[in-house]
Amino acid sequence: METKNAENATINHPVVTSEDLVKHWQGHRSLTRRVIEAFPEKELYEFSIGGMRPFAELVMEMITIAHPGIVGVATGKWEQLDHGTAPKTKEGLLELWDKTTEQIDTYWPQISPQRFQETDVAFGQYENQIYASLFYFIDNEIHHRGQGYVYLRALGVTPPPFWER
Amino acid sequence: METKNAENATINHPVVTSEDLVKHWQGHRSLTRRVIEAFPEKELYEFSIGGMRPFAELVMEMITIAHPGIVGVATGKWEQLDHGTAPKTKEGLLELWDKTTEQIDTYWPQISPQRFQETDVAFGQYENQIYASLFYFIDNEIHHRGQGYVYLRALGVTPPPFWER
Repeated sequence: METKNAENATINHPVVTSEDLVKHWQGHRSLTRRVIEAFPEKELYEFSIGGMRPFAELVMEMITIAHPGIVGVATGKWEQLDHGTAPKTKEGLLELWDKTTEQIDTYWPQISPQRFQETDVAFGQYENQIYASLFYFIDNEIHHRGQGYVYLRALGVTPPPFWER
Repeated sequence: METKNAENATINHPVVTSEDLVKHWQGHRSLTRRVIEAFPEKELYEFSIGGMRPFAELVMEMITIAHPGIVGVATGKWEQLDHGTAPKTKEGLLELWDKTTEQIDTYWPQISPQRFQETDVAFGQYENQIYASLFYFIDNEIHHRGQGYVYLRALGVTPPPFWER
């Protein structure tokens, strides 16, 4: 129900472009990678506060949202969510992280411009506009990474600065 | 350096609109408000893990970014960042939170459509495109709120679900 003027204004001046959004996401993912690296190997898999999951499990949640997520966003074909089991070493986890980074870069250009405002049922479960699902993937990573920062501080490890991407 | 076709596609299909973005931000702020409410009053001001700030101080950071932030975004006039001192009660902190919510709603419609892609120096310190500064405000809140979730879990309090906005 926008006026013609408002409509033109929106059309000529996007708030954020597709390229902005993938750079934003990959910037966050680059920081999360450094947070994974900052964990001592044992504590990555075992350390926990207040009954929460160890950071390796939170990372598996991020990975298993991001990869089938980007496929669903780009193609409309969604798998069921399954957070799987983390690779047994930090090196293995980082390899899986890097593979996911490549998959995002591969699929992103396949997202058609009109797709971002379409409504779809992410993972066959969560009905939302595509941009909102993408925001959810990113926000969920920031949320759990923030928890990882507390784990690191509790372990006496200085985490990488939040503003470095 | 986009092709004419890609340019038209972007123009006709914004990834996210101005209205989408403010709803997204206010949705997150609504969740953060419930996280503040979930804290026992004493622990809101005193509880800490690993030498980190108590949640009331993290909330003051969010508030003192959001309010001068939205003014700077809408008007181009930036104050210096100053996280100030938290009101002495949870009730007072929530009142300040709600005042900030209103200020965002008041200033948001004054953001011109072309403003989001402009570069500006937020708080006289951080040079970035306006959409990226807004993402930073939101992401910083998610990050610190995620830390509040760990504090609550460590205190034996169940936080509100992350996906409820």
